Amino acid sequence: MIIVMGREVTDEQLGTVVNKLEAAGLTANISRGIERTVIGAIGDERKLTPEMFTPLPGVESAMHIAKQYKIVSRESHRENTIVDIGGIPVGGKQIQIIAGPCSVETQEQMDLSAKFVHEAGCRLMRGGAFKPRTSPYTFQGKGKEGLDIFRNAAAKYKLPIVTELMDARQLDTFLEYDVDVIQIGTRNMQNFDLLKEVGKINKPVILKRGMSATISEWLMAAEYIAAGGNHNIIFCERGIRTFETYYRNVLDVTAIPVLKKETHLPVIVDPSHAGGKAWMVPALSQAAIAAGADGLLVEMHPTPCEAWCDADQALTPDELKALMGTLGGIANAIGRSL
Amino acid sequence: MIIVMGREVTDEQLGTVVNKLEAAGLTANISRGIERTVIGAIGDERKLTPEMFTPLPGVESAMHIAKQYKIVSRESHRENTIVDIGGIPVGGKQIQIIAGPCSVETQEQMDLSAKFVHEAGCRLMRGGAFKPRTSPYTFQGKGKEGLDIFRNAAAKYKLPIVTELMDARQLDTFLEYDVDVIQIGTRNMQNFDLLKEVGKINKPVILKRGMSATISEWLMAAEYIAAGGNHNIIFCERGIRTFETYYRNVLDVTAIPVLKKETHLPVIVDPSHAGGKAWMVPALSQAAIAAGADGLLVEMHPTPCEAWCDADQALTPDELKALMGTLGGIANAIGRSL
Amino acid sequence: MIIVMGREVTDEQLGTVVNKLEAAGLTANISRGIERTVIGAIGDERKLTPEMFTPLPGVESAMHIAKQYKIVSRESHRENTIVDIGGIPVGGKQIQIIAGPCSVETQEQMDLSAKFVHEAGCRLMRGGAFKPRTSPYTFQGKGKEGLDIFRNAAAKYKLPIVTELMDARQLDTFLEYDVDVIQIGTRNMQNFDLLKEVGKINKPVILKRGMSATISEWLMAAEYIAAGGNHNIIFCERGIRTFETYYRNVLDVTAIPVLKKETHLPVIVDPSHAGGKAWMVPALSQAAIAAGADGLLVEMHPTPCEAWCDADQALTPDELKALMGTLGGIANAIGRSL
Amino acid sequence: MIIVMGREVTDEQLGTVVNKLEAAGLTANISRGIERTVIGAIGDERKLTPEMFTPLPGVESAMHIAKQYKIVSRESHRENTIVDIGGIPVGGKQIQIIAGPCSVETQEQMDLSAKFVHEAGCRLMRGGAFKPRTSPYTFQGKGKEGLDIFRNAAAKYKLPIVTELMDARQLDTFLEYDVDVIQIGTRNMQNFDLLKEVGKINKPVILKRGMSATISEWLMAAEYIAAGGNHNIIFCERGIRTFETYYRNVLDVTAIPVLKKETHLPVIVDPSHAGGKAWMVPALSQAAIAAGADGLLVEMHPTPCEAWCDADQALTPDELKALMGTLGGIANAIGRSL
Repeated sequence: MIIVMGREVTDEQLGTVVNKLEAAGLTANISRGIERTVIGAIGDERKLTPEMFTPLPGVESAMHIAKQYKIVSRESHRENTIVDIGGIPVGGKQIQIIAGPCSVETQEQMDLSAKFVHEAGCRLMRGGAFKPRTSPYTFQGKGKEGLDIFRNAAAKYKLPIVTELMDARQLDTFLEYDVDVIQIGTRNMQNFDLLKEVGKINKPVILKRGMSATISEWLMAAEYIAAGGNHNIIFCERGIRTFETYYRNVLDVTAIPVLKKETHLPVIVDPSHAGGKAWMVPALSQAAIAAGADGLLVEMHPTPCEAWCDADQALTPDELKALMGTLGGIANAIGRSL
Repeated sequence: MIIVMGREVTDEQLGTVVNKLEAAGLTANISRGIERTVIGAIGDERKLTPEMFTPLPGVESAMHIAKQYKIVSRESHRENTIVDIGGIPVGGKQIQIIAGPCSVETQEQMDLSAKFVHEAGCRLMRGGAFKPRTSPYTFQGKGKEGLDIFRNAAAKYKLPIVTELMDARQLDTFLEYDVDVIQIGTRNMQNFDLLKEVGKINKPVILKRGMSATISEWLMAAEYIAAGGNHNIIFCERGIRTFETYYRNVLDVTAIPVLKKETHLPVIVDPSHAGGKAWMVPALSQAAIAAGADGLLVEMHPTPCEAWCDADQALTPDELKALMGTLGGIANAIGRSL
Repeated sequence: MIIVMGREVTDEQLGTVVNKLEAAGLTANISRGIERTVIGAIGDERKLTPEMFTPLPGVESAMHIAKQYKIVSRESHRENTIVDIGGIPVGGKQIQIIAGPCSVETQEQMDLSAKFVHEAGCRLMRGGAFKPRTSPYTFQGKGKEGLDIFRNAAAKYKLPIVTELMDARQLDTFLEYDVDVIQIGTRNMQNFDLLKEVGKINKPVILKRGMSATISEWLMAAEYIAAGGNHNIIFCERGIRTFETYYRNVLDVTAIPVLKKETHLPVIVDPSHAGGKAWMVPALSQAAIAAGADGLLVEMHPTPCEAWCDADQALTPDELKALMGTLGGIANAIGRSL
Repeated sequence: MIIVMGREVTDEQLGTVVNKLEAAGLTANISRGIERTVIGAIGDERKLTPEMFTPLPGVESAMHIAKQYKIVSRESHRENTIVDIGGIPVGGKQIQIIAGPCSVETQEQMDLSAKFVHEAGCRLMRGGAFKPRTSPYTFQGKGKEGLDIFRNAAAKYKLPIVTELMDARQLDTFLEYDVDVIQIGTRNMQNFDLLKEVGKINKPVILKRGMSATISEWLMAAEYIAAGGNHNIIFCERGIRTFETYYRNVLDVTAIPVLKKETHLPVIVDPSHAGGKAWMVPALSQAAIAAGADGLLVEMHPTPCEAWCDADQALTPDELKALMGTLGGIANAIGRSL
C-alpha cells in the first residue's frame, strides 16, 4: 500500500501513519519528494484498507498496489484452469456454446429446445426456472417444476444443464435435481451470502458480471466463492450499463483479454442479454470469440415470437446453426476449435 | 402501450400486432403517418411487455406509456404518506436525521454513539451488524451479537434502530430483536426474493437505490415490497455510479424532486456513502435537505479514525452537532422543521 | 411524433396541442386510452422538437418516432456507400487497416513508420500533427511542420494519409498539404462549426465518436457534415466512457452492427485509444473485424517505448504484422478479405 | 510520480526506469516490498507522463501523485478568488444569480427578459446568440444580430451579459460587442484551440463542465485558459451524463465542495440544463446554493411555452421571483447573502 502525504506534512503526522502500519505488522519506507511525501507499506497489505489511513491528519490518499484477490488471480496460478462439466471442458482450446431458451415454459418447448441445441452442435444447455424480473406483475418463472421439465428435456441428449440460482434457500432443490452448472445472475453478483453458499459446494458456478461492476469487484466476488473452497468458477460478461439507450447494455469485450490476464479461470460471454435484440447476437458472438472468450451463453427458442420472456433476443434454431458455422471459422483463425 | 411500425408496413403485419393485442384483452388504435404507422393499445397495458411485440415482423419499437408501478405511485395516492417509526414520523413536515456508526463494534462504542446521536438532537439511530464487504478477507460485521449490542445501546435513549438485512434467512433474528427499520442495501435492491420477504411483514423498510438503478427500476423494486402488503417504504438515495473517480459515487439530488413527483412515499438521502469522505458530508447533507429530502441517514462515530470500517466517511460527534444547526436553518428557509 | 397526455387531460388541453401541431403544418390523430391519451402527429416531424409540447398543460411526454437524420440514414440510401481514398475503397468487401504512430515526431521516425506500415500490408497511414492533449504543459504536436514530414514519408509508399483537424482555421493548411482523410477527434464530435466547415469540402472525413456520445448524437453530427454537401464520411468507434477504471475506455462493439443498420456509411474502429494499452489491441482488433467493422485505425510505432505520446498503446512493427495475419483469417471466416 | 514494478522485477528493469527518471532531471527512491517494488520520482513530475513508463519491461503501473494543474489549484493560491464582472463580484460572500432566456429571439423578448431579470433582483443576464444544436435542421441562433439585440436589452438595466462563444473566429465580434462574460459550452470544454484563444484576452470566462468530463479534466481545461494569462475563470457545473434516462443529466452537487477544495476560483451551477425541466429547477437551485455554489446560471423566459428552444426548462418571471426568495433564506442559513 502507498500512502501519499500532503505538501506540508509534519513529522508527527508521519509518525502516526508509521505507527499504524507497524501495529498491523508491516514496515514503512518513507520517500520525501518536493511536493509530496510517500510512505510505502512493506508486508502483507491485504490486512489494510485505504480507509484506515485516509482520515489521519496529513494523509492525502492511500491505495493498494497489490491485488486484493488471491485464489482467483493468475499470479497465484499461472496455467489456465479448465472447468469440467460432466466431461465437457470449459477454458481449454475447445470453445463451448451454451444455448437454450430464456425461461422454461413447457415440456414440449424444452424438448424441442434440447433437440435444436444438440443439432446445432452445442454441448451444454441453458434455461431459467427461477426468473429475476423487474416487475412483480410479470411471469416469475416455473420454479421447481421448471427444473423437472428442464432435467427431463436435457437428459435425452445428455446435455449438462445451466440454470440460475436466486436465493440460498433454493440451493437444496438445485442439488436434488443435480443441476450441472449454477448460474449467479447479474443482480446477485454482490449477494455475498449467496456467494458464500455456492462456495461451499463443488458444482461449477457461472458468475455473471454485475450491471455496473468493475473488473476488480467482479474478481473479488469470485474470490468470495473461491474462499469457501469451490474453485470451479466461470466468469460471464453480459454487458454493462452506460449512457447509451439504443441497446440494453454495452458488451464489454475488453473485459475478455483483461480477465484472461488477471485470472486463470474461464471467461464466457452472454451476447443475448448484452444487446437485447436477436439481430445483434451474431455480431456480438463473433466479437466475443474473436476476442478470446472460452464460450458463449446464448438464447435460442424454438419459436422466439411466442417466448414468455425476452422474446426479442432469442435466436431461431436456424439462426443458431448458421452462427455456429461462422464461429467455427473464427475459432480456427485464432487457433482454437468449436 | 405504443407500437411503432416501420416505413413499409403491410396490412398483414398490422393484423398480427392487432391480433396479439386483442388476445391480451386490449384494443388497438391505428394512426397512419407519412414515415411511420403507430398502434396505440387501449386497455390495461401492465399485462404487456414491449418484448411481446418487438420481434414481430414490421415492428420497429414498442414502449409503455403508463407507469408500471401502481401501489407506490402518486397517481394511486395523491397525499404524502407518513411512515411512523415508533412514534417518529418520516415524510411529514418534520425532517429526520438518522445517525450512527457504519458498523456495530463494541458495547462501549455503541453506548457512546447513542449518547452523541441523542445529544445532537437526532431521533433515530443507525448501525450495521451484518456488513456487505467487497472483500471476503475484511471484517464482515458482528452479526447477531451486534444486534444485541445495538438494541441495548439505543434503549437508554429510546432511539428506534435502523439496520441492514442482507439475507432472508436472517429475518427471524431481526424480528426477534425487534429491529425498528429494516434497511435493504444498494447491492440487494433487486434481490427480489428478499424484497418479497420484507413485503410480508409490517416493519418500515428503507430501500436504498441500487448503484446503477434507474428511478423506474427503483420504484419497481419498491412495488415488489408493496405488492406483498407492506406499504411502509422509505426510499434512500445514496449516490450512483458514474465515470467520475474523485468521489465514490455521485449523489443524485435530482432524484429527490423526481421521486416526490412519482411516489407518495418518503425519500431520504445517505450523504456518507454518496461522497465517501467526511469532509463532503455537510455540503451534501445541506443540498439534500434543500432539495426536499425528508431525512438523512448519516454516519457518525465517537472516534472516526478508529472505526472498523469506512473510517474516512464518519462525522465526529461535534461535526454532527454543527451540521444539525445548519440543517435547521435550511429547513426553516423551505418551510420545514428539523 | 407522439405526444402523451396525462390521466386527466381536458378537451382544452388537447385543443392547444392540436393547434400547435396544425400551425406547424401537421395533423393530429387522437387515441384515447384508459390511463393516457395519445396524440400522433402526421406529417414531417423533423420540424418539431419534443420541447415544443412538453411545457404545455396536460402533456406528460413527447417523443420523435421518425429518425432525425436523413442523408446519412440507411432509410434514405439502402446500399452500402464505399468511400474512395485515392483508389483505396473503404466500406466494401475489403477491410482496410490504417496504421501509424500517434504523433509525427521526426522525419526519420515517419520514414520508418511508413516502411513498416507498407510492409505489414496496410494501405493507408495515420499520424497526428496537431494533438489534443489534456494538459497544456505536454507536447502539443509538431503542427504544420508535422504535415510536411508526414507527406514526405508517406509519398514513398504511395500511402494516403489520415490526420486530425482540431480547428477550422487550420483547414487551408490541410488542403495545401492535400491531406487525404481529415479526422475529427472525439473531443470535437459536436464542434458544430468545425463540422460545417468539413461539410463544405470534398475530402473524406473520419468522424470519431464523442467520449460519451449516443449513437443518435453521432449520426446527427455526421448529418451536420452531410448537410453541407460532403457525404464521404467514415464513422470511427474509439471506446466510450464508463465507470470502469481498469482500461481507458470501453470499446463499444455493439455500435458496429447498430451503425451498419442505421447508416449506409462505413464504420471503422480505433482499438488503440479504446483500450489504451498495446497488449489489449490484438483482442480488440479481432473483435472489431469479427463484428463487421470495415477497417481499423491502429497505432504502430517503430520503437514504442520512445514515442513522444501514448507510448503504451502503440504496437511494434512485428506485432502489427502478426495481427494482420490473424485478421486475414477472421476476415475470411466472415466472407471478407483484408 | 509513483512507478509500481511487478512481482519478479529484475535489477536491469529497475535500472531502465531509474535512468529514464534521471534523464528527465528527477531522482528515484526505491522501496522493495514483498509483492511489489515501488519507485518514487523525486522532482518536478509535471514533466512526466505515466505513459513514459508503463510500456517499459517490468512496470505494472505508473501514476501522478502531485496535481497536474498549477495556476488554478488552491495549493498555489489559498484565498478565494473573486472575479469582478463590471463591478459585480462572483466568488465572494454574495451569491449571484445569472438569469435570462436560452436564446435571443427578438428585441421585444429580450427587453422583457431584461426587465424581469432586473425585477427579480438578479444582477447579471444570460442569453444565447450562437447556439450549439444537436440537429443541423433546428434553429442555430440569431448570431451577430443576436448580440446586438442582447446588448441593447441589457443596457437599460445595466446588466452585464453572459453569452456563449462556439468558435474562435467569432471572438472579434464578441469583443466588438463588449460581451462581459464569455461562456464556453459543455461541448467545447476540451476544444483546446478555443481555450487558448480566450486565455489571451482579459474577459471573465464561464467554463462549463463537459458532459462526461472528470473533475481533473475540467481543472486541466481551466489550466489551458489560465496558462495563457487569463485567470478570470468561473467553473459551471451543468449536470453529467449517466445511465439515468428520466432526466437529461445528473446535477453533480458533489462537484461543488470538491472544486472549492481543489481550486480558488468561483463555482456556479446551471440547474436548467442539468434537469432539463422547469419543475426541477427550484429543487436543484436550492441544492446548489446549499452545497456552497457561488451562483447560478438559470433560464427564465417571458413566455416559456413560446420559447424557440428548450421551452420546457425555462422558469416564468414569477417562478424566478419566488425562487429568489427561497434562495435568500438558504443563503442566510449558510452565512451568505443573495
